[in-house]
Amino acid sequence: MNSVTEKIKLSADKVDDFLKKYFSKKNTNNDLFEAMSYGLFSGGKKIRTYLTKCAFDIYKIDEYKYIPIAGAIECVHSYSLIHDDLPSMDNDDFRRGKESTHKKFGESTAILAGNSLLTTAFEILSSDEINVDKERKLNLISALSMCAGHKGIAGGQFLDLKFEKKQKNKKEIIDMQQKKTGELMGFCCESAAIVAGVEDDREKLKEVGLNLGLLFQISDDLLDRHGDSDKIGKPTKQDEIKGKATIMSAIGEHQTKKLAQDIQSLIKESLISYGDSAWTLVECANYIFKRDH
Amino acid sequence: MNSVTEKIKLSADKVDDFLKKYFSKKNTNNDLFEAMSYGLFSGGKKIRTYLTKCAFDIYKIDEYKYIPIAGAIECVHSYSLIHDDLPSMDNDDFRRGKESTHKKFGESTAILAGNSLLTTAFEILSSDEINVDKERKLNLISALSMCAGHKGIAGGQFLDLKFEKKQKNKKEIIDMQQKKTGELMGFCCESAAIVAGVEDDREKLKEVGLNLGLLFQISDDLLDRHGDSDKIGKPTKQDEIKGKATIMSAIGEHQTKKLAQDIQSLIKESLISYGDSAWTLVECANYIFKRDH
Repeated sequence: MNSVTEKIKLSADKVDDFLKKYFSKKNTNNDLFEAMSYGLFSGGKKIRTYLTKCAFDIYKIDEYKYIPIAGAIECVHSYSLIHDDLPSMDNDDFRRGKESTHKKFGESTAILAGNSLLTTAFEILSSDEINVDKERKLNLISALSMCAGHKGIAGGQFLDLKFEKKQKNKKEIIDMQQKKTGELMGFCCESAAIVAGVEDDREKLKEVGLNLGLLFQISDDLLDRHGDSDKIGKPTKQDEIKGKATIMSAIGEHQTKKLAQDIQSLIKESLISYGDSAWTLVECANYIFKRDH
Repeated sequence: MNSVTEKIKLSADKVDDFLKKYFSKKNTNNDLFEAMSYGLFSGGKKIRTYLTKCAFDIYKIDEYKYIPIAGAIECVHSYSLIHDDLPSMDNDDFRRGKESTHKKFGESTAILAGNSLLTTAFEILSSDEINVDKERKLNLISALSMCAGHKGIAGGQFLDLKFEKKQKNKKEIIDMQQKKTGELMGFCCESAAIVAGVEDDREKLKEVGLNLGLLFQISDDLLDRHGDSDKIGKPTKQDEIKGKATIMSAIGEHQTKKLAQDIQSLIKESLISYGDSAWTLVECANYIFKRDH
């Protein structure tokens, strides 16, 4: 059996292949596309592709169905990273050990590349690449739009910037992080229930994804404090330097680690009714917390 | 009979009402929404709402069907204006006689407000607000995503910035302007054929909208050169100062006016087969060229 790292690599490669084929079919080769590609194919782990695959495993859905959806998710994820790095946002010159998009292509191109990737996600979801019935396709589009907008990713980034250098309580920080990171992971999981047509499972799986997002964020915070910057591909200790509002800054490291354990238990409990079908998702949750990069 | 200005105001008010109700149903009242609202309800003419209505008139489609679609279009239009004004783009401190969104709320909030409006457009189009069958709904989403992305609005703005202070020929400038302005007007018209389910008309109406976009841009360029800055709500002579690549800069004012007449004839010719049903759209085309603000 492959390790989780290998399995993530496998799903990421499949989704990258899909995206490259998708763009080549569209005859997309202008200069702006170079900046979009730089953000999209710049060697991130693409953990969300595997998370989506694990959620689809629950319903034993044919593999080819998750790939274009994970492609749309990666477009949204890349868009959010390109914009987060901008000078007026987190002002990060490096991402994954390489120059961030605005450093390489300039600020206006980075903004437009982000916008274009966000739009591409909806282009993919409304296209024939998504092999599900029309109702489920519309449910996918609706769910993704809600998790990407002002009540999701954009709203989370807004709060993150607003919270900077301010003392915030645990509830406020969790709300911000669930919007910023959790919502899209929520969609990774919820999309499986949408495609399977099991409406009753949508909320539960979305919740699992939101909790996975929180776990991901906590492990990110721990990596920032204790991790190896070479492995992570960006400088560490940035949260402290920038005065970022993190769960750790609100409740301390000990309580944060305890919270992470509680979230892991909660995720396992939510998935217990699926039995063995959910084991890849449980394994993915364990990996997300224990990763070292 | 009301004047075109009055009819535009009427459709704009109806679409504003729809958008306000839509957001209030979603319980949207966070700080980011303030910046979105500022961009969306800041008193632009909302000419695209009326253009959409005129296209719907061709098929005598019930009025309530164009309103939410025009709402989505206005979200995309506002997003593009907010981002166009950014310091790294056109760096405009004023829009419609008021501070631009980034001047009032800061750069990061303006970027996120734009992103959120873009996303809201897809949220609306995939929602129950759009009262058409699922296939047509998906066609609307697909068409809008293509006209907003890297081959449409975002791509056009990219070219516009790239062309600055460079001598470009007529073909290059028309391509840029059709992407930047024409594509969304194309969607205004095409959406009527989509909702009517007349697939064969889609390309023709899209083309009419693209030509209307060109006409709109030419009249904008003429207003910038000869217009009254108080009426327009922004300083004039900016194209020359900023070295913008416009059709006028490529072929001169006389040839540009001749081109505008040719485009008007082309639009009328395209619409002739619809007879009287297209008269509001023809009237709208005349208005677009002759407007003084």
